[in-house]
Amino acid sequence: MTNSLSYSTQLAQQARVAATALANVTAGRKNAWLRRVADTLRDDATAIVAANAIDLDAGADSGLSPAMLDRLKLTPDSIDSLASAVGQIIALPDPVGEVIEGQRRPNGLYVSRVRVPLGVVFFIYESRPNVTIDAAALCVKSGNAVILRGGKEAIHSNRALQAVIEKTLVAEQLPQHAVQLVESTDREIVGHLLSLGNLIDVTIPRGGKSLIERVAREATMPVIKHFDGICHVFVDASADEKMAVEITVNSKCQRPGVCNAAETLLIHQAAAPKLWPQLAKELQSRGVELRCCPVSLAMISNGKPATDEDYATEYLDLILSVRIVESIDQAIEHIRRFGSAHTDAIVTNSVESAMKFEAEVDSAAVVINASTRFNDGGELGMGAEIGISTDRFHARGPCGLRELTSYKFVVRGEGQIRS
Amino acid sequence: MTNSLSYSTQLAQQARVAATALANVTAGRKNAWLRRVADTLRDDATAIVAANAIDLDAGADSGLSPAMLDRLKLTPDSIDSLASAVGQIIALPDPVGEVIEGQRRPNGLYVSRVRVPLGVVFFIYESRPNVTIDAAALCVKSGNAVILRGGKEAIHSNRALQAVIEKTLVAEQLPQHAVQLVESTDREIVGHLLSLGNLIDVTIPRGGKSLIERVAREATMPVIKHFDGICHVFVDASADEKMAVEITVNSKCQRPGVCNAAETLLIHQAAAPKLWPQLAKELQSRGVELRCCPVSLAMISNGKPATDEDYATEYLDLILSVRIVESIDQAIEHIRRFGSAHTDAIVTNSVESAMKFEAEVDSAAVVINASTRFNDGGELGMGAEIGISTDRFHARGPCGLRELTSYKFVVRGEGQIRS
Repeated sequence: MTNSLSYSTQLAQQARVAATALANVTAGRKNAWLRRVADTLRDDATAIVAANAIDLDAGADSGLSPAMLDRLKLTPDSIDSLASAVGQIIALPDPVGEVIEGQRRPNGLYVSRVRVPLGVVFFIYESRPNVTIDAAALCVKSGNAVILRGGKEAIHSNRALQAVIEKTLVAEQLPQHAVQLVESTDREIVGHLLSLGNLIDVTIPRGGKSLIERVAREATMPVIKHFDGICHVFVDASADEKMAVEITVNSKCQRPGVCNAAETLLIHQAAAPKLWPQLAKELQSRGVELRCCPVSLAMISNGKPATDEDYATEYLDLILSVRIVESIDQAIEHIRRFGSAHTDAIVTNSVESAMKFEAEVDSAAVVINASTRFNDGGELGMGAEIGISTDRFHARGPCGLRELTSYKFVVRGEGQIRS
Repeated sequence: MTNSLSYSTQLAQQARVAATALANVTAGRKNAWLRRVADTLRDDATAIVAANAIDLDAGADSGLSPAMLDRLKLTPDSIDSLASAVGQIIALPDPVGEVIEGQRRPNGLYVSRVRVPLGVVFFIYESRPNVTIDAAALCVKSGNAVILRGGKEAIHSNRALQAVIEKTLVAEQLPQHAVQLVESTDREIVGHLLSLGNLIDVTIPRGGKSLIERVAREATMPVIKHFDGICHVFVDASADEKMAVEITVNSKCQRPGVCNAAETLLIHQAAAPKLWPQLAKELQSRGVELRCCPVSLAMISNGKPATDEDYATEYLDLILSVRIVESIDQAIEHIRRFGSAHTDAIVTNSVESAMKFEAEVDSAAVVINASTRFNDGGELGMGAEIGISTDRFHARGPCGLRELTSYKFVVRGEGQIRS
């Protein structure tokens, strides 16, 4: 225990020193590093795939599901995609040094608010090893040092990727501790790192609910949390039927296992009789199990009754809760009661409904006439993201480069004093 | 204990409901309320002064210092100033609904980031009763419900001020629980409220270090902390002497008891021989005790030797730590080691030094050729402030209306789905 505490403290102190050095590195030098990371990933693909094979074998032996093994797997093609993703981060503007706003005060002082890095980020994530590279690239580009703690299933893959990161940091003369991987799979280390609020500025956990709850409970520094996505599509009385079908099907089926997939469909009672039976068929033909309120259940075949617990569940699967509502107010009330304030969409042709939904639904993303699946850093124009925050504090929704920054006030005068 | 927990939960639930209702109230209605608060404060000044007299008597009996009694005291004149301060908040733009940024995506989606209130604020503060009105005005204008917990020394004054707030909320048909005062002085209630992270969005403690430490330890929601201000003035080799004297004297003496007053003076060795003896005299003539490094001590009369502990102390008094440094790098290193990243100023005529100081000193406010005393919401052009954050997360430096907000993404489409 003492050993793992001193190891954790050493990691954090090294990150602190690296963060100070990194804060003023120019975008040109950070981009040169990103370019070298992309090139080296491609050059070293064979070694990375070999390391990944050890994880895949161990995963198969320990009974990981095929879906989990698929998430874990790296191939020359997926490594090439990863290198391309790093290339895209080069193109994003450096957030550090951005003047967020500025003014000249009546007394002649120039006051500006300038973006600075947060400092040291502790990033905890689960099995997908490509996240290792994404997180390192985003943190370094935003001037932060990062301590990476990946899943133990991916430890060999992560070590191989970290080898790329370390040698490229050295080659580009950036602080070598700008990115550190927790080498040990010892679970105690996470607790120790979470206790170091004086050295680490923010913890970002990405993974299952129990991980995030543990981190929120133990952390002595701010946490950017990523909780449930219980996302809704509300089909208003005036909705275009074709649009309603397409948006509902896309929101539910395009990638059901992710946080911005829809879990509940609400339909205005005026639209339901004509729309719902047809929409239900479309969903069922794609293998979606429908859990319905009594009214919607009576209109279709092969539905199941829904419980309140269903409405409060993030299925992450081809299951959809359905409810027919009397009004937009009842829909908004349902979203407030059962939703998780992540992503909620309305399909409507009524300006009044669109404005009301936008104003009264207080979710990280409120979507009018489009799929819930658009709540994503890339789709919203922020470039890559390190996660999607379900918090209201500091950052909400997708967290890209800017969300990994703070700011400072710069005040320039000619001798002004306060009277 | 059960009673105080159920009382706390009731306060928080009422605040939650009020926050939802308040989130969409127009600026016009919020400003009408502020106008009525200002008018009613003036109308009810006699009753407020009478309530305040009870606190003043009790304070004198319990041995509050004259300075504390002075902070506690309300007069018709100070109530008039308070009403004017409320009037100034009317003039500030409503942050809620501000479109922070927006773009049209290649697929035709309109994406914007729109400012929304944080929700429910728990504000804990000490004896000055005028803070009650400031905090209520700022929170309501930014669309937040607030639970106010003032000091027990000011409870009668705060109740009289809260009576003004409540009757004006009712008169203007705003949610009556938008502002609630914790009526009891029971210390347990603070702990209970800090445990209600599911109902309260942020806690802002303003007061002594032990209060803030307790809140940071116990809170289950984010906290905007306001820790030490160990602020520095660095006089560079090239500084204008007159400016250096004026800025140092103003930073130290204009109001020594506040967080943005200077606590340490650093002087470049090239400037010291000519400047320091003269500056020391100016400071000593204003009653400032000088605690000096050996070199600076030898150059003046009546100085005292400084210890490392002195350099790490926020005096909040007419005491100044002094050190002569060999270089700007040594000054920056000193500020990193001993400072609190609050407010640090340089006096220089060198562009190179100014740029270096600005880039490498990572404080909430970095000041070039002006007094440290300018790190204040009003002075920086943000209007009134609810506190000055020493955190890097969410808000740094003065916290005005905008810093009491979050945002949501609004995505408008014409049927877009994700492929």
